[in-house]
Amino acid sequence: MNFEEKTLKSQDIFSGRIIKVKVDTVSLPDGRESTREIVEHAGAVAIVAVDDVNNIYLVRQYRKPVENVLLEIPAGTMEPDEEIIVCAQRELEEETGLRAGSWEKILSYYSAPGFCDEKLHLFLARNLTTGEKNPDADEFLENISIPLEEAYRMIFTGQIVDGKSIIGIQYAFNHLVRG
Amino acid sequence: MNFEEKTLKSQDIFSGRIIKVKVDTVSLPDGRESTREIVEHAGAVAIVAVDDVNNIYLVRQYRKPVENVLLEIPAGTMEPDEEIIVCAQRELEEETGLRAGSWEKILSYYSAPGFCDEKLHLFLARNLTTGEKNPDADEFLENISIPLEEAYRMIFTGQIVDGKSIIGIQYAFNHLVRG
Repeated sequence: MNFEEKTLKSQDIFSGRIIKVKVDTVSLPDGRESTREIVEHAGAVAIVAVDDVNNIYLVRQYRKPVENVLLEIPAGTMEPDEEIIVCAQRELEEETGLRAGSWEKILSYYSAPGFCDEKLHLFLARNLTTGEKNPDADEFLENISIPLEEAYRMIFTGQIVDGKSIIGIQYAFNHLVRG
Repeated sequence: MNFEEKTLKSQDIFSGRIIKVKVDTVSLPDGRESTREIVEHAGAVAIVAVDDVNNIYLVRQYRKPVENVLLEIPAGTMEPDEEIIVCAQRELEEETGLRAGSWEKILSYYSAPGFCDEKLHLFLARNLTTGEKNPDADEFLENISIPLEEAYRMIFTGQIVDGKSIIGIQYAFNHLVRG
């Protein structure tokens, strides 16, 4: 079965600093028409940074859309034409002041493919050393590091509620703690 | 440290069927001002449906924002005033034709809290029996079921790239396969 939805018309709604929004009119597989509301995003990286005794580095940050302080793995939006791994190294150092001697790609995924094209690239960073913290001008962060087992438990107690962090912590727990 | 960002002004940009978009002007912790682009979403449920021999049920569906057919766990948007568990039961049956004798809440999380308030509620559904498939009018789905171990591998080969599915499959693999 061919599921593809051909674009009949595309209407630009909004163009901001972080997202663009458009409404596409599409032809469905049965020939009828529908509309798709689409949020466009440049993509992002997120870093599972784990030290030699299996502590994971997290950032605490106010997230306006959910009106709450969330505990998340370090992450950031891609700059235009930036290489993914370069972006990951930059964001880890900016947000935590850490550099990593070992970088491993975990996976890439879509955060909300029903209405948004944001693709996230997850990395495992190990052999951590101290670099220079330098967050964005409108970013206010607190850094913590906790045992990976504790971070894993916090997924199920509702203390860690951010999608990329849950994916990354599940991965690290499976590969570094359970082995 | 108080991270809260107070809303100084809120501008409505778009109000669609699935999302609303607004731009808030906020005061930062250091007193300066910035803007936050915010996508509002009613929230959604997603269901990890696993049968008695550890096969997981997935749906294959075209996702216009990423212009691709994705393999995902069954999911759907909450209706106004709908109870979360009722929504999960409705969506599982609509998308797969399955009912479940056992429902267990896994966790709730935010898919993209940097710019969107969408909250997803994940359930584990077991003791599956046959109900009545009835997808939405603009939804075209193919159902498959595969061993949980295979779904877990497909996360790391790039064959499953949807965030909620990656979280749910990692959970089910850890609890039902590895135990």
